Amino acid sequence: MSLFAQEPLDPLNPAMAQTAAPPVMEARRWLEGVTFTPERPLINVSQAAPVAPPPHALRAEMARVALEVDEAHLYGPVLGLPALRAEVARQWSVAYRGPVRPEEVAITSGCNEAFAAVMATIAGHGDEVLMPVPWYFNHKMWCDMNGVKAVPIATGDDMLPTIEGCARHITPRTRAIVLVTPNNPAGVEYPPKLVDMFYALAKERDLALVVDETYRDFDSRDEAPHAVFQQKDWGETLIQLYSFSKAYRLTGHRVGAIVASDQRLAQVEKYLDTVTICPNQIAQYGALYGMQHMGDWVAGERDEILKRRAAIEAGFADLAAKGWALLGCGAYFAYLRHPFDIPADQLAPQLVRDAGVLCLPGTMFRPKGDKHGAQELRLAFANLDVAGIATLFARLAALSV
Amino acid sequence: MSLFAQEPLDPLNPAMAQTAAPPVMEARRWLEGVTFTPERPLINVSQAAPVAPPPHALRAEMARVALEVDEAHLYGPVLGLPALRAEVARQWSVAYRGPVRPEEVAITSGCNEAFAAVMATIAGHGDEVLMPVPWYFNHKMWCDMNGVKAVPIATGDDMLPTIEGCARHITPRTRAIVLVTPNNPAGVEYPPKLVDMFYALAKERDLALVVDETYRDFDSRDEAPHAVFQQKDWGETLIQLYSFSKAYRLTGHRVGAIVASDQRLAQVEKYLDTVTICPNQIAQYGALYGMQHMGDWVAGERDEILKRRAAIEAGFADLAAKGWALLGCGAYFAYLRHPFDIPADQLAPQLVRDAGVLCLPGTMFRPKGDKHGAQELRLAFANLDVAGIATLFARLAALSV
Repeated sequence: MSLFAQEPLDPLNPAMAQTAAPPVMEARRWLEGVTFTPERPLINVSQAAPVAPPPHALRAEMARVALEVDEAHLYGPVLGLPALRAEVARQWSVAYRGPVRPEEVAITSGCNEAFAAVMATIAGHGDEVLMPVPWYFNHKMWCDMNGVKAVPIATGDDMLPTIEGCARHITPRTRAIVLVTPNNPAGVEYPPKLVDMFYALAKERDLALVVDETYRDFDSRDEAPHAVFQQKDWGETLIQLYSFSKAYRLTGHRVGAIVASDQRLAQVEKYLDTVTICPNQIAQYGALYGMQHMGDWVAGERDEILKRRAAIEAGFADLAAKGWALLGCGAYFAYLRHPFDIPADQLAPQLVRDAGVLCLPGTMFRPKGDKHGAQELRLAFANLDVAGIATLFARLAALSV
Repeated sequence: MSLFAQEPLDPLNPAMAQTAAPPVMEARRWLEGVTFTPERPLINVSQAAPVAPPPHALRAEMARVALEVDEAHLYGPVLGLPALRAEVARQWSVAYRGPVRPEEVAITSGCNEAFAAVMATIAGHGDEVLMPVPWYFNHKMWCDMNGVKAVPIATGDDMLPTIEGCARHITPRTRAIVLVTPNNPAGVEYPPKLVDMFYALAKERDLALVVDETYRDFDSRDEAPHAVFQQKDWGETLIQLYSFSKAYRLTGHRVGAIVASDQRLAQVEKYLDTVTICPNQIAQYGALYGMQHMGDWVAGERDEILKRRAAIEAGFADLAAKGWALLGCGAYFAYLRHPFDIPADQLAPQLVRDAGVLCLPGTMFRPKGDKHGAQELRLAFANLDVAGIATLFARLAALSV
């Protein structure tokens, strides 16, 4: 498109104009004009998504629903399929050792919509939301396009925020604290005590605590990731987000969830009715089948991801010797500090050409001008097996920029 | 829920608090405690949605995609399946006699999301949008929850707005005019000349013209519903919205479309990436199959809807004799003025009990305090065959409130 051929877009919401373009789409453009060979294929560690379809049994169930379940083709309830809401409530009550009722669960068109719907009930134009950095870029984009100020909360060498560091940024306009655990992009698993302390802080200051647990099925720990659901009045403060996309390989089907008080969900219902009316039905039946029949399969997937994570940690020595640092590792992600004297947003396209590796620069996960981002890269390693990780590391170790 | 058992919800975005609850969900509550008999079953004319699943061939195609198309389970492009975008462009170019390119088409998670995504690129907090009344309630709800002022534009006895009546409300904060044709809730088909004149007005005043053509497949006219796509620079002003839900009975699958300039779609892409990432894939393959193979079937559906519309118009004489008026009729809707001395929002629940009829009151389609709404009812007649329409009218004619 020529810069001069077109009139500037008008009318244009200035908040949308100031919102960044989707990072994953931008990164894909770096591939243009670069050729890869069978001997040295592209290693794509840019997107946190399974690249294989779900197992046959789940696909067969979705096909059965399409053919046999008439009502799966009609509008469903705004807040989701009752059987799926009930199954989430049942499994959550066990996993978190605190009772969750079906009325406290809503199903959404993916976890991004869960975030958008929840935040729309919490924060409006001019309000502020506290988010540890590096943050998940779609969270930041939502804030920008809605005129909500995303206030970055620094994390330490352990990639974790502190209560004090967060509390310092609370103002009369602050409405929520948003945590992502296990973290995207930094991989780190927030200690249960830390989540509980953030809950106490949010409760004390009348803020919402939004905890995005998209990667909960790949948490390396066997205990519950926090004890907040054991609090009698958790619903006054906590809002939890979840995605069925990763565990059951349903990314193409858009199905996520919100766990929150029924009062909160009555507000969420307005948003969902207005934006998508209901989650698509086949995906919901698929997610229900997954929850009811694929527990062992998901456990196996988790074992494999944890094996890959261990391979990242064990294999990092060679890179460390060359000045790289592994800042965080968990869920689908390794978050690195690179040793080169070149900003990450220039390094990342260069890695495509020089190393055949596509990953996202830290600048995409931090506010403009945050100097840490220039030294950081996110590797979404979930699709690489142990041999693939070795190849990736060999390519990075061979680099001299 | 006890009024006294719970704390008020906090934090709560005041814009969301002031947004109405979903009308269709509220109407469903009027059914509680009312019993219907086989001799006198409920006639539900509240929701504009097919109550039957799509034909077997389309269901079989969706099942095939679930089983055989691996990539249908993975994230797709944010703006939709390329083949579906291309098919919309191809069919639109013929139907509207003006070239539409695939890059000017985006696929969304239903037509409500198409509206939300488009409006988010146009109007922000404090901006104004002009919408003829009665309006589609989800459009109004979107405005309310985003702090955008929905400015009602009066319509005449023909249920159509005038250019002058609209122009009078343009202020420096006005960003768009939103038209729905064929209209929900009023049923009226906007004359092509009127749409063209609104386009000229919007163009002259640097506003976006958003035209929601969800019901285009049931338009009674054989010519194009407007000539705007024949304008060389339509993309600077026009944004068209479409739904695959009605023609192909895909309501449960959430798939709609936007036709707009590629510049506009670059902004829309930010919204879609942030809120739903991509439209669900099986629905997109289904819509593509429908467009490519179900043209004759849709034509038959349209014939049947037009037959029902004719039955509404022909059968109205008895009601007219009792003081009812048929204000508009088309698409899925008959929009009525009732003769009773009771506001429509009280009459509608009473109709459930006294006539076994569930429909929506005009108050749901108008701003608070608009006195016309109290006299109006919307009947979404699409699911009633000719005999059913006769029964409905007999029940209404027998009423003495």
